[in-house]
Amino acid sequence: MSDPVFLRACRAEPVDRVPVWFMRQAGRSLPEYRALRGTGSILEAIADPALACEVTLQPVRRYGVDAAILFSDIVVPYHAIGFGVDVVPGRGPVIAQPFRTARDLERLRDLSDADIAHVTATVDLVVAELAASDTPLIGFAGAPFTVASYLIEGAPTRDFALIKSLMHADPVLFDRLLDRLVAITVAFLRAQVAHGARALQLFDSWAGALTRDEYRRFALPATQRVLDAVADLGVPTILFGVGTGELLTLMTTAGSTVLGIDWHVDLDEGRRRAAKPVQGNLDPARCLGGIDLGVTAAREVLGRAGREAGYIFNLGHGVLPATDPAVLEAVVRVVHDEGRAGVQ
Amino acid sequence: MSDPVFLRACRAEPVDRVPVWFMRQAGRSLPEYRALRGTGSILEAIADPALACEVTLQPVRRYGVDAAILFSDIVVPYHAIGFGVDVVPGRGPVIAQPFRTARDLERLRDLSDADIAHVTATVDLVVAELAASDTPLIGFAGAPFTVASYLIEGAPTRDFALIKSLMHADPVLFDRLLDRLVAITVAFLRAQVAHGARALQLFDSWAGALTRDEYRRFALPATQRVLDAVADLGVPTILFGVGTGELLTLMTTAGSTVLGIDWHVDLDEGRRRAAKPVQGNLDPARCLGGIDLGVTAAREVLGRAGREAGYIFNLGHGVLPATDPAVLEAVVRVVHDEGRAGVQ
Repeated sequence: MSDPVFLRACRAEPVDRVPVWFMRQAGRSLPEYRALRGTGSILEAIADPALACEVTLQPVRRYGVDAAILFSDIVVPYHAIGFGVDVVPGRGPVIAQPFRTARDLERLRDLSDADIAHVTATVDLVVAELAASDTPLIGFAGAPFTVASYLIEGAPTRDFALIKSLMHADPVLFDRLLDRLVAITVAFLRAQVAHGARALQLFDSWAGALTRDEYRRFALPATQRVLDAVADLGVPTILFGVGTGELLTLMTTAGSTVLGIDWHVDLDEGRRRAAKPVQGNLDPARCLGGIDLGVTAAREVLGRAGREAGYIFNLGHGVLPATDPAVLEAVVRVVHDEGRAGVQ
Repeated sequence: MSDPVFLRACRAEPVDRVPVWFMRQAGRSLPEYRALRGTGSILEAIADPALACEVTLQPVRRYGVDAAILFSDIVVPYHAIGFGVDVVPGRGPVIAQPFRTARDLERLRDLSDADIAHVTATVDLVVAELAASDTPLIGFAGAPFTVASYLIEGAPTRDFALIKSLMHADPVLFDRLLDRLVAITVAFLRAQVAHGARALQLFDSWAGALTRDEYRRFALPATQRVLDAVADLGVPTILFGVGTGELLTLMTTAGSTVLGIDWHVDLDEGRRRAAKPVQGNLDPARCLGGIDLGVTAAREVLGRAGREAGYIFNLGHGVLPATDPAVLEAVVRVVHDEGRAGVQ
């Protein structure tokens, strides 16, 4: 039997339709999610396998997307080893004691299977539910640089002042931190695949805060090591960041199967820079003005996707919380009906 | 007598040293500014010519920068005509009744000299003070797209959802809005030059939120019209935005004398894309880790500036509030001592 269309597109194989899924499709924008969730921390919801499984499946049912992505968060493994992470609603990850000195390396021990038993239990449940439709589950993790930015800054930032100061002032300590994050990230990704995830996305969400020199020195090598260490698993990998136009020609050398691009780069130009399969790049804000505007925007992206195989439709960043699900439903239809990249 | 080095660099003429100034050099990061300012709104401070003049001059005295920039804000003309703008400390411009429909066009009447008498009075004072040192004053305004984003969104945003929805859903109304903003912007810029400003910067700060197609359709024409309408004044113009790597080859066609670039683009690559004089591009966050790190970062920028004339050293965005002025003092010294672009 042929692989699902999402996996085929990741490998630049011909497809019978362009596959589509949405970053952050699981969660905050769906009314059925808000009805299910209480007022507790998102980390509590993630820790409940039955709940997390249901949230993971909700967008697959509603939208008919071609892949599920685990309802989780990139800080989950760091919360699990007791680094002291909380996710504050409307704000994002907050660290009680941010990473400052070499002594903080001791707080970043290796990840054990027991630490993430709740995650792998969710993967087990989701994979069992998705078997009938042969819909692949995407597992994910934060790339080392982006995780380091959370651990060092301690709270969401626009300036990345603390991490930039640390990496330039003490590159040896920064490398030691990245070493720890590579080990944890690899363990986290491998566990998800061991339990049935059929693709992996590595979110280097904030890599775009770096210059090319900084990316080459402080982000790319650790990302390469993570991707190298999961290559033997044989599942497609997707590397994604925001505001990475200047970095794409470097990021594409990191070894992922697919390169995710945001919406700032025109898709045809992004495909040229990536020179490998690409995922993206609809501006999520274009989905906030109603169905007609969303469909028009999706058609613009499809128009730039070309005919060449190796394209997965997605947003250029996560679904915005205010998005009307009816817009995404319409976008899925237009992608399935009109997408031509790799369609024979 | 030869023109000041800043003006010469804007025109790609040879210089005896690379000129430097800093966006947001006047104001929030300076202790002498904080000592002077009370707790009132920044718009009140701007409305006090003696105070605004002093704040404009403070960084010239402290840093020995090669240009002053007026202590003002891009919302000043809209506040002046009663659009209902306030600048909330730590948050930015907030609009009580944002722009929503054609009826709001009536709230955007032409700017009169009387509306901005406080601004031109400040310009008069500053120009008189700077005459002895022949230091040029830079006047400025917000570019129409960026001003429209404030007027429509009503508050700082990351998503630009309202303006993107409006411009795609009702491009005719959006063009009418831009028409009003072009007229006001031109009047505001011309008044500053009439009172002695010797260069103009147009801040299209948020243009980087747009795709190339959107920039070409919804931002570039209005910016071109503003620049055309001040061209006869014979003062250099600088067009600047953040996150504009993908847009530089379009922005450089808008007609400014100089193109400002942020820090995401390598300076040598930025100079190539601009194909005209360039201003920038030190990452302001690199100035938050002490003098040594700031100087190292400045040297990296100077190293990419090349030898060709037509380069003005600056940050790639405004001075961050937490910046230690000692770092910027050291950056000015290293630029003056070691900069080579256009130095004969």
